[in-house]
Amino acid sequence: MQLTSEELKTYDLQGYLLLPNCFAPGEVEVMRAEASALCLQDFAGKILKRDGKTVRMIHGAHLENKVFHRLVRHPKLVKPIMQLLGDSAVYIHRCSLNFKPAFEDTMWSWHQDSSYFCKNDGMPTDQAAIAIVFLDEVNEFNGPTLVMPGSHKEGLINPITEEEESLAIEEKQYLKSRRTQYMLSRPTVTKLVEKYGIVAPKGPAGSVLLFHPSCVHGSAANIMSPFNRTIAVIAYNSVENIPVAVENPRPEYVASRDYRPIEPLSEDVLLQAV
Amino acid sequence: MQLTSEELKTYDLQGYLLLPNCFAPGEVEVMRAEASALCLQDFAGKILKRDGKTVRMIHGAHLENKVFHRLVRHPKLVKPIMQLLGDSAVYIHRCSLNFKPAFEDTMWSWHQDSSYFCKNDGMPTDQAAIAIVFLDEVNEFNGPTLVMPGSHKEGLINPITEEEESLAIEEKQYLKSRRTQYMLSRPTVTKLVEKYGIVAPKGPAGSVLLFHPSCVHGSAANIMSPFNRTIAVIAYNSVENIPVAVENPRPEYVASRDYRPIEPLSEDVLLQAV
Repeated sequence: MQLTSEELKTYDLQGYLLLPNCFAPGEVEVMRAEASALCLQDFAGKILKRDGKTVRMIHGAHLENKVFHRLVRHPKLVKPIMQLLGDSAVYIHRCSLNFKPAFEDTMWSWHQDSSYFCKNDGMPTDQAAIAIVFLDEVNEFNGPTLVMPGSHKEGLINPITEEEESLAIEEKQYLKSRRTQYMLSRPTVTKLVEKYGIVAPKGPAGSVLLFHPSCVHGSAANIMSPFNRTIAVIAYNSVENIPVAVENPRPEYVASRDYRPIEPLSEDVLLQAV
Repeated sequence: MQLTSEELKTYDLQGYLLLPNCFAPGEVEVMRAEASALCLQDFAGKILKRDGKTVRMIHGAHLENKVFHRLVRHPKLVKPIMQLLGDSAVYIHRCSLNFKPAFEDTMWSWHQDSSYFCKNDGMPTDQAAIAIVFLDEVNEFNGPTLVMPGSHKEGLINPITEEEESLAIEEKQYLKSRRTQYMLSRPTVTKLVEKYGIVAPKGPAGSVLLFHPSCVHGSAANIMSPFNRTIAVIAYNSVENIPVAVENPRPEYVASRDYRPIEPLSEDVLLQAV
């Protein structure tokens, strides 16, 4: 699968591109079963919610599980990603499963992934690309990813506003303590929404959302709906954008230091026996 | 303004009807200014959030404020409502302003208004009707009212499921204590959504959403968006459905005992000098 020049242009303009029904229902079934199985296993990358029971995230699903090891190498993802990154060879920076169960309040504040990639992981530039694979239908009611189209053109945005910069150190620290790292402030979000608006790309299970790491995004809770929303989030990086060493690197399953380029596998790899 | 027979049929089938752009921008401006003014006044019907500052609701806006006194008598609301209630004379059961400010977590769990009207206020039947006036644009991102189309045909739904009925008294009480009164249980919501689905009627400020008190509805928080969502909610009742006496009646500003039929005022009443 190759992106058309029209699709490449759309991605460049909007910072994201939705590919509906990229994977077939049978392939989705396989991935969903493996995601459920992973929830029952114990390993460092498994992150629970505050209740100590509900799984919020599984970091490094591709390192723990054969199907996700294959998914991140699937040609339907790798080939378009290579196109988006200037036909460069790519490696896997990270892969996680993000769970947003029915009636749960898990949410993600507005942020840019590039803040983490560049500031925490040492990527020289934001020239990476993310593929989100929908393992459930994503609809208006189960907390779809919200995107500000075109916001990737801003580059890295300072999560602290100019007004906040001028506050006393204590107040600044207090504000910081109330946010997750790199969560954008409300005044910043307000200004960005005025400029770029919000869209919520939706689609059936098996759809893929490609997006730029500097594209501002987040998602609301799934508190009202009886529909689970599980997604696989895979960040690819160009081998020409290999991170520099950082002082306190995040764990391997969050930010990989295995820079070997990946080779796309065959189209039917998800349906092959494990 | 009269509803067409097509619109009446839609209401009967779906339990709701959206009338986009019912009020002009100038009329919306007047109402919005009065809503802000009411937030600064002190009276019994003003309900704050847990933070003790943010206004969540203003009960009895039509009793405190001249513009809302006029709104509830506006022919664009009263005439359609009379049609929905079989051309009966109607009175105001209640009127509230519901605030859902930008970036706030105010939400409303799934429920039927008729539970409150019949069980708490003594209405013999659910043959009342509600008009929601949008004082802000209601969009996908600022917590629109979610509706299960057709669910009004269920009549009054028991908020406790059959499975829960068979639990030990302590467990039943525990479950009840975790819900707001008449909040539908998750198993009940799941079953109802399978049967009826969910829609989120949206529209510009000035639009009106008419809906049946037994239509199951709720709304998610407005935590991600910088858009306020203020609505005026007016419940009308037929004079042929006057409540019977109840033991602990809710305050007058929540459930009126003034059953005098209202007369629609003139079309331009919101723009007249107060």
